[in-house]
Amino acid sequence: MTSQELFANICRKKSFLCVGLDTDLKKIPQHLLNEEDPIFAFNKAIIDATADLCVAYKPNLAFYESLGVTGWQALEKTVNYIRENYPDQFLIADAKRGDIGNTSEMYARTFFQHFNFDSVTVAPYMGEDSVKPFLGYEGKWVILLALTSNKGSHDFQFTQDEGGERLFEKVLRKSQEWGSTDTLMYVVGATQGSMFADIRKVAPEHFLLVPGVGAQGGDLNEVCKYGLNSKCGLIVNSSRQILYAAKDETFAEAARCEAGKVQADMEAILRSNNLIG
Amino acid sequence: MTSQELFANICRKKSFLCVGLDTDLKKIPQHLLNEEDPIFAFNKAIIDATADLCVAYKPNLAFYESLGVTGWQALEKTVNYIRENYPDQFLIADAKRGDIGNTSEMYARTFFQHFNFDSVTVAPYMGEDSVKPFLGYEGKWVILLALTSNKGSHDFQFTQDEGGERLFEKVLRKSQEWGSTDTLMYVVGATQGSMFADIRKVAPEHFLLVPGVGAQGGDLNEVCKYGLNSKCGLIVNSSRQILYAAKDETFAEAARCEAGKVQADMEAILRSNNLIG
Repeated sequence: MTSQELFANICRKKSFLCVGLDTDLKKIPQHLLNEEDPIFAFNKAIIDATADLCVAYKPNLAFYESLGVTGWQALEKTVNYIRENYPDQFLIADAKRGDIGNTSEMYARTFFQHFNFDSVTVAPYMGEDSVKPFLGYEGKWVILLALTSNKGSHDFQFTQDEGGERLFEKVLRKSQEWGSTDTLMYVVGATQGSMFADIRKVAPEHFLLVPGVGAQGGDLNEVCKYGLNSKCGLIVNSSRQILYAAKDETFAEAARCEAGKVQADMEAILRSNNLIG
Repeated sequence: MTSQELFANICRKKSFLCVGLDTDLKKIPQHLLNEEDPIFAFNKAIIDATADLCVAYKPNLAFYESLGVTGWQALEKTVNYIRENYPDQFLIADAKRGDIGNTSEMYARTFFQHFNFDSVTVAPYMGEDSVKPFLGYEGKWVILLALTSNKGSHDFQFTQDEGGERLFEKVLRKSQEWGSTDTLMYVVGATQGSMFADIRKVAPEHFLLVPGVGAQGGDLNEVCKYGLNSKCGLIVNSSRQILYAAKDETFAEAARCEAGKVQADMEAILRSNNLIG
């Protein structure tokens, strides 16, 4: 998918919502545990209930890996289900991988060939050759961690060098030598709302994937105030608040209701910024 | 496993070798492709041929994930085989994971509960709450990326802050607040041989996992000159050079021969440093 196609989807759906499929057996409605594949049954219901309200889905790999082979199979089924039924969705493997070149190449093959994800989140610590193998696939994206939504982001990401540049800024600046606005996005946590102005100084054109709205406490309006650009430039993720809106048989309906609230807020924001008519 | 037990294994086996199980279907002897599970068949032969010459095995997850469910099953069988037949081996999941707290907790569960690894490699970029969930398991270890063996390590890891501290030094210093010498090791690439002196200034007591000897060009003697401490303090990994020493039916024998050369070098080093009698 190109950035232009992604922006077109955003305008058509009046939404830049990503639903994070952080599916946890301990949190899904307990009646689903009788299903042959509870994880997939839950995901399918959530996807069917939200697909017209969002432009992206983001399974976090940790939740699937923790179940071993069973989880891996549920992930395969989920990705295939979205591809077949909602081909306009942007699919993000939230994997936060990154290794030496020949190993990153294996990870890229996993997420782009074995699975058919559009993008994968990558950790920048190991530098250029750990990121580049993910950039060699036509139409596929790297979403590089820049400024994350968690408390620990303050441990290293704000470290300032002798010239006053902070580590997350160096990641943003340096990585732009490796990919374009059609192959590279950045993770910027919603909990760092006011930092979006600084981010946009270094990366004005790139799409940003924004976790942390909802359960983690980030504010959508603040993110948009500083982060929106002329092609939207934002994909805002919500996971727990949508997935676990209800714990009984109404869970899919409740998830749709929560996603709908976020979509309505996004529509208003897109409209007031003249990005849609 | 405690650091004392690991050191005892090193002294008994006269080796601080880790064999990296980066098993690639394209590189293993082609006659194994007729086996029901070629990856496991290869690993089993390599393990049986090298177990008395090494103290640790390190499967890199990328190689297994790239095969989907099949790879995941081969990894489970490999881990179980080592646990049952060679219980003194230190098992490293080379996964380079790291995510926000509740997600890192899922990864920790995967590697320490679903699998029975002793340790997992973790990327430091997201800070304390991304690392700590891995430290909550009795007898288990985090191996944190500090200074990696690849070219890209120069992009961010050497970034110097206003006080002159480099990022890898900050990672070493700060993370010591989160774990002890019995729960925390560091990845330091062998290709950065002379840097071991600087590493030992900040982390004199910790075990270091050292990739990059062999195919990547690192030098064992230089690593040991600067990196060895009074309890050895080093686990040196070799993958490709051992695994793919021969491509025909003599592969296991050839792997044993390569591992034996490294072990002999290590024995001489341990002896000349009076760590064994």
